[in-house]
Amino acid sequence: MIEKPKVEVCFTPNMFPLYAEDFEVVVVIDVLRATSAICTAFHYGVDKIIPVSTLDQAIEYKDKGYYVAAERKGKIVSGFEFGNSPLSYTNDKLKDQTLVLTTTNGTKAINMAKDIEHLLIGSFLNLDAICNYLIELNKSVLILGSGWENKFCLEDSICAGAISEQLLKTNKFESNNDSTIAAKYLFLSAKSNYFGYLKASSHRKRLKKLNLNEDIKYCLTPNQTDVIPVREDYYLKKL
Amino acid sequence: MIEKPKVEVCFTPNMFPLYAEDFEVVVVIDVLRATSAICTAFHYGVDKIIPVSTLDQAIEYKDKGYYVAAERKGKIVSGFEFGNSPLSYTNDKLKDQTLVLTTTNGTKAINMAKDIEHLLIGSFLNLDAICNYLIELNKSVLILGSGWENKFCLEDSICAGAISEQLLKTNKFESNNDSTIAAKYLFLSAKSNYFGYLKASSHRKRLKKLNLNEDIKYCLTPNQTDVIPVREDYYLKKL
Repeated sequence: MIEKPKVEVCFTPNMFPLYAEDFEVVVVIDVLRATSAICTAFHYGVDKIIPVSTLDQAIEYKDKGYYVAAERKGKIVSGFEFGNSPLSYTNDKLKDQTLVLTTTNGTKAINMAKDIEHLLIGSFLNLDAICNYLIELNKSVLILGSGWENKFCLEDSICAGAISEQLLKTNKFESNNDSTIAAKYLFLSAKSNYFGYLKASSHRKRLKKLNLNEDIKYCLTPNQTDVIPVREDYYLKKL
Repeated sequence: MIEKPKVEVCFTPNMFPLYAEDFEVVVVIDVLRATSAICTAFHYGVDKIIPVSTLDQAIEYKDKGYYVAAERKGKIVSGFEFGNSPLSYTNDKLKDQTLVLTTTNGTKAINMAKDIEHLLIGSFLNLDAICNYLIELNKSVLILGSGWENKFCLEDSICAGAISEQLLKTNKFESNNDSTIAAKYLFLSAKSNYFGYLKASSHRKRLKKLNLNEDIKYCLTPNQTDVIPVREDYYLKKL
């Protein structure tokens, strides 16, 4: 019997080395808000996004004249023009431009997986698009949550569960992984009301304090775009 | 306002360093089967259990004449008399004796947390006993799952959720931690039928192949004992 491709979920970037060598396809998720912002920026016409892990790298790019977005702990870093609010990218200011991006968790997860052949960016915003593409690719998939400072985070795990559920129900994929089962259960109990389900989550509380409820609602609304950001060389492009 | 003690869940031993310094109380869980076996052995009169991480250490103790239990990948290691099946400890063979124990995941988690002031051993078997003791202690608690080779494991997470739920519903504890929320949700959806809920879990499949369904049923049946194993020096004792 031919083995089916697998779907596995890795909850946090620091666990990634335990999984890395078994996968050619990795979907990075940071629902609140890096990967939601990336999907939105591409939807509104950004040409390239360069993810960088440190503020030092971000400043270097800024000095060279790039548009640079920098977020730490939910806020735009002082001295930078852009942060990681998806709603700030719903316009054509950056159409056909290159954006450099560094965030607390998401860009670190992206760079952690930079040697993977197919590195894709996922979120609720492009949920169906990315699932359809993964089904077409027909290879084993690791879904990598960005977590919060390397700890487990609820919204990324629920989104990972949503992707797992879509792939597994085609019967073209299989899973032998407890984190995939857990993510699926969490998604199934959350799906009727993501916003309510997440009200106790640490990240939602953090962003609520920063008056970012509109951002959260937007990030939790599935299927607002068909874009699939993929890594190409050192930057992300629209597939 | 006085802050309440916290309940947090750490899903795997390799994440423990992110939490260690904030807690004086750690409950280690390895439902299938190390911590279930430890609770059972104490219930049937074992005096001390010395948890060791490596087979080398286990052999050293064996050569000195100790009773030694050694399990790897679900089986008794060849050359050893005992493994980690709780059912093999439901007799008085080891009454008043010292047992040395090494297992694939559980004893590693126990030794990882060996510098914590109050290190307790939890399982479904002593669920209410350990919760009542934690409520009495009234200190912040970290529940540490043993995982499977450092990956997330479902049954430990559900047991962690069961403990979290009992502590949080007293209103004497609080949690700001997404893994606690997730563990609680997983427990709430599993609690009507642990055995059925876990049927897809990787570990149950692994043990089923080894004809260990009776062990699994036993380990998933709450409140079969009041013993609370605690670390004292380099060994575990009954509180």
